[in-house]
Amino acid sequence: MNKFQLDSRLAADSFLIGHFELCELRLINDSRWPWLVLVPKIAGAEEIHETSPDQQAQIANETAITAKALKQMMGCEKINSAAIGNIVRQLHIHVIARNENDTNWPGPVWGFGKSQPYDNDKKALVINQIQKALSASPQFSL
Amino acid sequence: MNKFQLDSRLAADSFLIGHFELCELRLINDSRWPWLVLVPKIAGAEEIHETSPDQQAQIANETAITAKALKQMMGCEKINSAAIGNIVRQLHIHVIARNENDTNWPGPVWGFGKSQPYDNDKKALVINQIQKALSASPQFSL
Repeated sequence: MNKFQLDSRLAADSFLIGHFELCELRLINDSRWPWLVLVPKIAGAEEIHETSPDQQAQIANETAITAKALKQMMGCEKINSAAIGNIVRQLHIHVIARNENDTNWPGPVWGFGKSQPYDNDKKALVINQIQKALSASPQFSL
Repeated sequence: MNKFQLDSRLAADSFLIGHFELCELRLINDSRWPWLVLVPKIAGAEEIHETSPDQQAQIANETAITAKALKQMMGCEKINSAAIGNIVRQLHIHVIARNENDTNWPGPVWGFGKSQPYDNDKKALVINQIQKALSASPQFSL
């Protein structure tokens, strides 16, 4: 059985925030939106429905914990969550905080315009905020 | 407690395929992609993470059954699934079959171009195919 290894494009486009039991939690390097991805540490996984029932339940649970923390932290209008993977096939679940005055509202974030990388201070601040918002969850660790 | 009632825009933009235990399954009236939505019959629900843990597990399960049936039926390259709801706030989960030669691949389907309504024959054919693909699932009924 192959060992899980993070896709090189996901690694290049995002920063590690921490770990759930099953998923790595990462921040997409695009400061236009607070945009997280969960990457289940399952070698070869591409579709949620092709993982085991236990893994599906765990993915749903970790996604909900992330969505709840992000919504509380940002006070945002809406959470957008999705598993798309048309380009990067390694299974990853997007969780994004959306607001009525954000870039491309109410359209989707995927495929829109050009990403705006974080500067170091802002990146550290956002990662720290998310780590704090999740610190009460026993399933999350740094 | 309010009774669940399908949002009028979802009703106008889609056709009923059948019912799971928790969700209504509908076909979006856009023939560019085989595009399904699951609508949990929970009054007032807007975010998956705000439903109960049992409901979250049920949504995940019914979404996976739908995705699996759609992928097998279409032989498609990728399933795209998402809960967005920036416009229609009633909770609904998109499940879409994508292929490398389809409209806007590998970009997302949401917010892209103008929908192309089904003609009656094609609509009946697609609904019938999906009903057949799900007929083996004890959780699905017409």
